[in-house]
Amino acid sequence: MLARDIAVQVPTVTMNDPIGHAIQVMALGRLPGLIVLDERQRPRVVLPGTQVLRLAVPVAFQEDTALTRTVDEAHADVFWHEIRDMTVRECIGTHTPRPVMVKESATLLELATLMAKQRSPLVAVVDDAGLLAGAVTLDRLLSALALARPDD
Amino acid sequence: MLARDIAVQVPTVTMNDPIGHAIQVMALGRLPGLIVLDERQRPRVVLPGTQVLRLAVPVAFQEDTALTRTVDEAHADVFWHEIRDMTVRECIGTHTPRPVMVKESATLLELATLMAKQRSPLVAVVDDAGLLAGAVTLDRLLSALALARPDD
Repeated sequence: MLARDIAVQVPTVTMNDPIGHAIQVMALGRLPGLIVLDERQRPRVVLPGTQVLRLAVPVAFQEDTALTRTVDEAHADVFWHEIRDMTVRECIGTHTPRPVMVKESATLLELATLMAKQRSPLVAVVDDAGLLAGAVTLDRLLSALALARPDD
Repeated sequence: MLARDIAVQVPTVTMNDPIGHAIQVMALGRLPGLIVLDERQRPRVVLPGTQVLRLAVPVAFQEDTALTRTVDEAHADVFWHEIRDMTVRECIGTHTPRPVMVKESATLLELATLMAKQRSPLVAVVDDAGLLAGAVTLDRLLSALALARPDD
């Protein structure tokens, strides 16, 4: 099987979307991460779910996790409301790694190795022009691996 | 809301389980990771899904991803069959980080900060004796955050 055989369509976001919207897209789609597209429908960044969440956690808490224990329960429920209107671009910053992506002809082994190495349960699949063709989630890859049987 | 309010029961594995079994447990449960318990039901390791997958990718490919492109499609589908009988312990090695876990009284902010920092979409929740009480997944945390509304 190849990436094109197991890729699925997923909702995406852009750098101009508010971070609150990005989190909603991920939550409603039950996605393990998010693909951020540029204006030409090319993947700009592929974020694992935990790193989308990171965008919503104020930096002060990330730097000093002991601080999180000083926030009472009521406020701890709504911490991300303060920054939900900031855009994905504002939260990510300008230095972004190369997006986690493969061509449609990538094998399951290539997908698995990339996911493992980049710690990303979501991989963008692009066509020869570099445009988004679909995505492979960890769930989807595991299902495909489970179905495969050696010939011998 | 606190960790105890949103924790769910999840299937777990032990260090002696074959890696093939561990991957099946994760795939069938559609879990974003796995909790590995010791013989006293205490979390020993909490592995993000991508790192469970990593255990199944032969080391040679992890070190030189260009090698993955030398494997044909049929063999790339079944790469993990070779090592599926190795135990989780054999694949993980002896140096494991502190498990990603919180007490039942942890707030949503504490959970979010820990997930973001440890890049783990799964957090073990333990009782006062350190025994596994449940788990919080990224999906579950996002749903809880989406429901929370500021008082004002």
